[in-house]
Amino acid sequence: METAYFNGKLLPKDDIKISPDDRGFLFADGIYEVVRWYEGFFYDISSHTTRLKRSLRELRINWPDADRFSSIANDLIKLNKLETQPAMVYLQVTRGAARRSHSFPIPEVTPTSYAYAWGFVPDSQLKETGIKVMLKEDIRWSRCDIKSVALLPNTLSFQEASENGLKECIFVRNGFITEGSHSNIFFVIEGTLFTHPESNNVLSGITRKNILRIAQESGIKIREEAVQENRIRFIREAFISNTSAEVIPVTELGGNTIGEGVPGPVTRIIRDKFDAEIRALKG
Amino acid sequence: METAYFNGKLLPKDDIKISPDDRGFLFADGIYEVVRWYEGFFYDISSHTTRLKRSLRELRINWPDADRFSSIANDLIKLNKLETQPAMVYLQVTRGAARRSHSFPIPEVTPTSYAYAWGFVPDSQLKETGIKVMLKEDIRWSRCDIKSVALLPNTLSFQEASENGLKECIFVRNGFITEGSHSNIFFVIEGTLFTHPESNNVLSGITRKNILRIAQESGIKIREEAVQENRIRFIREAFISNTSAEVIPVTELGGNTIGEGVPGPVTRIIRDKFDAEIRALKG
Repeated sequence: METAYFNGKLLPKDDIKISPDDRGFLFADGIYEVVRWYEGFFYDISSHTTRLKRSLRELRINWPDADRFSSIANDLIKLNKLETQPAMVYLQVTRGAARRSHSFPIPEVTPTSYAYAWGFVPDSQLKETGIKVMLKEDIRWSRCDIKSVALLPNTLSFQEASENGLKECIFVRNGFITEGSHSNIFFVIEGTLFTHPESNNVLSGITRKNILRIAQESGIKIREEAVQENRIRFIREAFISNTSAEVIPVTELGGNTIGEGVPGPVTRIIRDKFDAEIRALKG
Repeated sequence: METAYFNGKLLPKDDIKISPDDRGFLFADGIYEVVRWYEGFFYDISSHTTRLKRSLRELRINWPDADRFSSIANDLIKLNKLETQPAMVYLQVTRGAARRSHSFPIPEVTPTSYAYAWGFVPDSQLKETGIKVMLKEDIRWSRCDIKSVALLPNTLSFQEASENGLKECIFVRNGFITEGSHSNIFFVIEGTLFTHPESNNVLSGITRKNILRIAQESGIKIREEAVQENRIRFIREAFISNTSAEVIPVTELGGNTIGEGVPGPVTRIIRDKFDAEIRALKG
């Protein structure tokens, strides 16, 4: 039986029920975090906790247990006997349940907190072969820096990519490539690694941050600068990153073959160094 | 005890619980409708049903009971003994509950449908005095024509207005005034009634549509054309509309007094004709 976390308690997942008055259900008035478990540790959970607290702060949700994220996640791994396999923990916090009104509830209500864990088998093939991705106008709101559950545009866009046999949907806003529906994206142009700077148009990915660190440590030239869609022909390499998939080479972007259509050398260096760092942490 | 509708059944509202796997909770992957009950009838529920079906179609949610909206709403009014008072019915339909994944569930799952009714006392004072509203950059996504529950930007914006003592937040996108966080907006400039045309940047309000009909029947010149923020000084009258509040004059917009700071003549004609139409329907 699956054990999950709900409002401070660990209980059977099937026993967890949300009120239809929950503002997560009525207004997408909530945030989430996802962290990866590597058979013994969570990767950079302190950064995830920092981002969780920022998301809560941006929405002014007063959830006092944010600092317990690591402990909650650990409990879920243990209780679900996931210690020895790759796993993920998902946490969502909403403003809570109250009579429907666009304004925040008065008096303030207790936030709803929910977390669960699941084991998975990483797709190591994609890290080798790379993926083809769609390119599409960014239909999302202008606060993509907040990891909110208002993900309808992301799901619609990803679904469209999937139905076209593509593995991610990459967004373009005002002519600039921003990020994917659930990933950041990097490019190599003339030997320099490009990724969209931190802004309200992209999520500050934890894997993104660590990739930038790894690139710097490897002496790779970095520019946190958005790439224009009309410069695609200059892109020699591309890859996406996120917490669950880590580093995945991109071989085709919006119908354009990238480089030789195989993972390029800078991508392979970063992917391999990321993997090596994980192996070293496993000890 | 309050009776609500849930997945085809009428039951005590307190017994209704949503799965934490519901895509409405995880992804804001759902839509809603709100219809107003006037002590005996729903106003233009056929338009609400048409819009409900359009929203479902846009999200490709296959909910077979959309044509039953009117019947469900009627049941909720009767069972909650709201027949003889002003009331509202809210309906929400999500894609349903499934293991979290950005792509639509395979196989398809049964949509979650939820509706409830409540009585209320209309604020007749605001219709007389008018309201002051905020003006703010539109932070929402680019499919505001879909009545989705991805309303986080709307709630944050409305909350900001509320905290500034203002009754609505009106959005500006690319220099053009679009609509409010939960209303459409109309302007009178040189005797002509302006409102944003139907587009992906505004919701096609049912009250908006009926106001345009009433204006036309009254011989008022209409232009469905967006008004630029920098033309505010030319606006002589303004009002907002929605299903629950009907027609509410706006006397101040983003700090600018509109006209004489009181409801203008065109606004009063439309408001009064709208009210007269309701009285006539009451018989």
